[in-house]
Amino acid sequence: MTDRLEQQFAFLNEADKLKSVLRATTLVDGSRRENSGEHSWHLALYALILADQADPAVDITRVIKMLLLHDLVEIDVGDVPIHSANGQAHGSTSVQQAESEAADRIFGLLPPDQGPALRALWAEFEASETPDAIFAKSLDRVQPVMANLMSGGGTWIEYNVTADQLQTRVGAKIARGAPRLWAWVKAKTAPFFA
Amino acid sequence: MTDRLEQQFAFLNEADKLKSVLRATTLVDGSRRENSGEHSWHLALYALILADQADPAVDITRVIKMLLLHDLVEIDVGDVPIHSANGQAHGSTSVQQAESEAADRIFGLLPPDQGPALRALWAEFEASETPDAIFAKSLDRVQPVMANLMSGGGTWIEYNVTADQLQTRVGAKIARGAPRLWAWVKAKTAPFFA
Repeated sequence: MTDRLEQQFAFLNEADKLKSVLRATTLVDGSRRENSGEHSWHLALYALILADQADPAVDITRVIKMLLLHDLVEIDVGDVPIHSANGQAHGSTSVQQAESEAADRIFGLLPPDQGPALRALWAEFEASETPDAIFAKSLDRVQPVMANLMSGGGTWIEYNVTADQLQTRVGAKIARGAPRLWAWVKAKTAPFFA
Repeated sequence: MTDRLEQQFAFLNEADKLKSVLRATTLVDGSRRENSGEHSWHLALYALILADQADPAVDITRVIKMLLLHDLVEIDVGDVPIHSANGQAHGSTSVQQAESEAADRIFGLLPPDQGPALRALWAEFEASETPDAIFAKSLDRVQPVMANLMSGGGTWIEYNVTADQLQTRVGAKIARGAPRLWAWVKAKTAPFFA
């Protein structure tokens, strides 16, 4: 028991560091950059509220668990923004390798009956092939779109993003798991790209 | 559909404000005060990892959903710390009334098939009578204990908290839903109160 709780709190205390990883996107009110801990909370709430947007349908509990874990590797690797001067690094092999090593280290802090299963859930999110992972990724892409919309443009202005880039980098991934949601959000973004 | 998404995003964008509500407790590294958004994420992660500490057993999915929502009323009311000069306000009738009105407003932003059910889940957490709510409350109490432990004392030093006060204000509530967890954590706190 004692060893088990030591391992579980080693993980939970390590996870606290995600609150200090800053993302490119700001809060909805534009007051400061969002951190990856509060972003993960907001996404889990997105899943809870927008579950019926998933198409195909998903196991929303698995999606929520996935989203709670999905950014933990950023404790070692940092956030790699989609729109940025370094945008081409997003999804690159070197970033994937670094994230995989981070997952080994961080999920490896947990007891053996927990770590591998949660690491597998993270890997499923990253691979983005199952309906649960595809929808989780849709939400991960739509939340910064909404923050940019609400805060007056955000990273779209900062990095001169075009409507075509938004569609390719973001919209296509949202539409993959939540097509009606992307249609609705895309219409909202139209005035910014007119 | 459109009206429904308008309502859902009115709620999700309003929820973003929880990231700007500051708590008394700091991050584990002591670098700054924690906000209630990232705190809610950390607690959901606590539930995912520490589910088997619940005694009596719980529906951990309901606990996670409850924890994602539990602090939203702070958008209107703010955080009321347990250890503080204003500590006696915690759980007072006037705070409860203000939180109830905040819940009406915030969950009232959602579509009618979602708002009342989620407001009821929040009310269940607040009432702290069901096993799910009691365990959720245990986690809400244990996470700041761990932050204080890790950061060298935190609000215990700031407000001259005694071992008896810790037991009464915090320990008893943790033990109610997670007795073995409190026994383990209490032993960890002993050196601070020796």
